[in-house]
Amino acid sequence: MNIITISREFGSGGRELGKRMADILGYAYYDKEIIAAIAQSTKMDEGYIETVLEKGIYPIVPITIGRTFSILPQQNITALFVQEQKIIKELAARKNCIVMGQGADIVLQDHTPFNIFVYAGLASKLERCRQRASGEEATWTAGRMEKKIRQVDAGRSKRHELITNLKWGVKESYHLCVNTTELDIKSLAPQVADYAAYWIRNRR
Amino acid sequence: MNIITISREFGSGGRELGKRMADILGYAYYDKEIIAAIAQSTKMDEGYIETVLEKGIYPIVPITIGRTFSILPQQNITALFVQEQKIIKELAARKNCIVMGQGADIVLQDHTPFNIFVYAGLASKLERCRQRASGEEATWTAGRMEKKIRQVDAGRSKRHELITNLKWGVKESYHLCVNTTELDIKSLAPQVADYAAYWIRNRR
Repeated sequence: MNIITISREFGSGGRELGKRMADILGYAYYDKEIIAAIAQSTKMDEGYIETVLEKGIYPIVPITIGRTFSILPQQNITALFVQEQKIIKELAARKNCIVMGQGADIVLQDHTPFNIFVYAGLASKLERCRQRASGEEATWTAGRMEKKIRQVDAGRSKRHELITNLKWGVKESYHLCVNTTELDIKSLAPQVADYAAYWIRNRR
Repeated sequence: MNIITISREFGSGGRELGKRMADILGYAYYDKEIIAAIAQSTKMDEGYIETVLEKGIYPIVPITIGRTFSILPQQNITALFVQEQKIIKELAARKNCIVMGQGADIVLQDHTPFNIFVYAGLASKLERCRQRASGEEATWTAGRMEKKIRQVDAGRSKRHELITNLKWGVKESYHLCVNTTELDIKSLAPQVADYAAYWIRNRR
């Protein structure tokens, strides 16, 4: 199987890039699908699984299991990560795919995935967030939005280091780092898809 | 004018990549040419100019001026950097070009260059260095070669920070970071050239 993993800064357009690349290459696209599969196999609430997995491990966390609100002990949170890794491996074994985040670059390293990091300048990320904001977020100041960007990225960074012991976003961990500042994701996607296909075809 | 700058780790194949991209795109290629132009305008020895510019500023440095071996005071070394920046700007104003290193990403920032950083894993860099080694270097152990890689990169890093006050090799400073590990530069060059042409055409 050919696997592409995409790690990205919040607001960099990485998710849209991944979706468009999957369409262009005819690959499966896994993002929230991973959370849904864990929810199904554990009978846990998707929102909570997402929160726990995105923000990293807490000593104890209240969590909805089935319809019962209870406390999930540390060992069960670790089990959640193990379950997630198992599901990522199962999904990746089925067909060529693009996996968003979830430390998939490391989880799937035996399959030699092509690992991309997507980033952008702050002004560019703020502009993207502003354009896609809805509900309460649409009323936020740039300062409030910047705080969210930093928080989400700090969570991704912490989570990545917990699973992998490697720094998140450090170029050495990736095969290509793409700065989306001032670029339109729709026009960018074929370029990066083409590079990914080249890499998969040509690496020694 | 369209300008592409390439910063690279020693042994990453960045120079070959730059030369091939220049051929593909029909751009001028500036590397040692910059040193030669400075030598011509200052009547200094090319080897010494290269050493001073690559290793950064020393308090006092012995240097060959014309045929006289003398000491170049700090102010003259600074003048050398100023002269270099002037020549880079002059060269870049003439035609579409690729400029290797020399902090050109910053020196030319008013011209919105496309800035690339080329890097690779250590094993890959050692292998490239081994393949192109000649003379005494061909007899070096991997450890000795690794030391040279680190020394050259430390010099480039120090030099970049002296001129720009920015960290060398940190992805935020570049539009694309390309990991050449396990890749053949000849097959890679059209990919990166295509991406550069896309970026120049499409950035907002």
